[in-house]
Amino acid sequence: MNAKTDQPKSVVTLNLPDWLTTDALPWAFEPNCADSAMSLAIELSRQNVVHQTGGPFGALVVSLAAGKVIAAAVNCVEAQSCSSAHAEIMALSLAQQRYAQWNLAATPDAPLTLVTSAEPCAMCLGAIPWSGVRQVICGATKTEVEAVGFDEGARSSEWVADLAGRGIRVELECLRDQAAAVLKAYARSGQTVYNP
Amino acid sequence: MNAKTDQPKSVVTLNLPDWLTTDALPWAFEPNCADSAMSLAIELSRQNVVHQTGGPFGALVVSLAAGKVIAAAVNCVEAQSCSSAHAEIMALSLAQQRYAQWNLAATPDAPLTLVTSAEPCAMCLGAIPWSGVRQVICGATKTEVEAVGFDEGARSSEWVADLAGRGIRVELECLRDQAAAVLKAYARSGQTVYNP
Repeated sequence: MNAKTDQPKSVVTLNLPDWLTTDALPWAFEPNCADSAMSLAIELSRQNVVHQTGGPFGALVVSLAAGKVIAAAVNCVEAQSCSSAHAEIMALSLAQQRYAQWNLAATPDAPLTLVTSAEPCAMCLGAIPWSGVRQVICGATKTEVEAVGFDEGARSSEWVADLAGRGIRVELECLRDQAAAVLKAYARSGQTVYNP
Repeated sequence: MNAKTDQPKSVVTLNLPDWLTTDALPWAFEPNCADSAMSLAIELSRQNVVHQTGGPFGALVVSLAAGKVIAAAVNCVEAQSCSSAHAEIMALSLAQQRYAQWNLAATPDAPLTLVTSAEPCAMCLGAIPWSGVRQVICGATKTEVEAVGFDEGARSSEWVADLAGRGIRVELECLRDQAAAVLKAYARSGQTVYNP
């Protein structure tokens, strides 16, 4: 190891890309409209490809009823040197830090919804029940994610029912074609499909 | 929302507790000795209970062959307001930030091992293949974790074989009784068993 890496770390710091500022997207959308929220998540995934700042994935934590974005994120694995910095984990963590509350079910804007441009991998799926969101809306399917070369991990085929059993509603294939188009554009761009 | 929470966040910051400084534990252990590494992870879990800084879980990323601790962490969910700040995710992320490398298999100290005082939950299990560790050593069992009231999530019963299929070796029940004793002490202490 060089001098820089010679000491153990005591803090994890994960930054969104510079382009994803508070001006980067509208922080409101049509209330109670999943498509309207999803179109923002897909736009984030597309911008992450355009800016070459990470994998083709975007996610939001929103109040669907209020049409309000609480947190917006993209995949930051490579840029932040963190294999768990998937868009969903980033969005959930940013929302929790905004409220200074690990349980999003206990926040003033609850119930909150995770909106993700692609179905969650095994890790992000496991993170969802711990977060306190009450709904998940997904764009592209596992098949479409894996067709590009990304790995979704060892997910249970019963995952939608598992989450339902925990009081978390899942909506699949919301604007699926638009979401999948970003994955295909990423594959064409020749950017990294990282896998350890 | 109050003023403090009125703006979206663009950075996730996760700090270890103040007591877990570089002086807090020996950063070397007996090379090629799983028990020696595990005793450090269990000591971290115990100290997290004593200091009342989080859940009764400790984890390390180590080079087992070199007897070297790369990263040490504890559960920071409540203290850091982050539901994914489990000890395993913290240890993996701290190790990755130390090397500025999301893939621990590509670091100069590889192959690296995750040592965790208790079997990973569904989220942490999902995170392991993405991290680049090549081995996982676990202390207390899922049954012991759940007996205290924590939830391990929807883990596949085939998880050890699933990881093996990805080239990641798992060792279970390493110093199991000592690890489980910390869980029981936590339950007796009356500290939070958080679940959303």
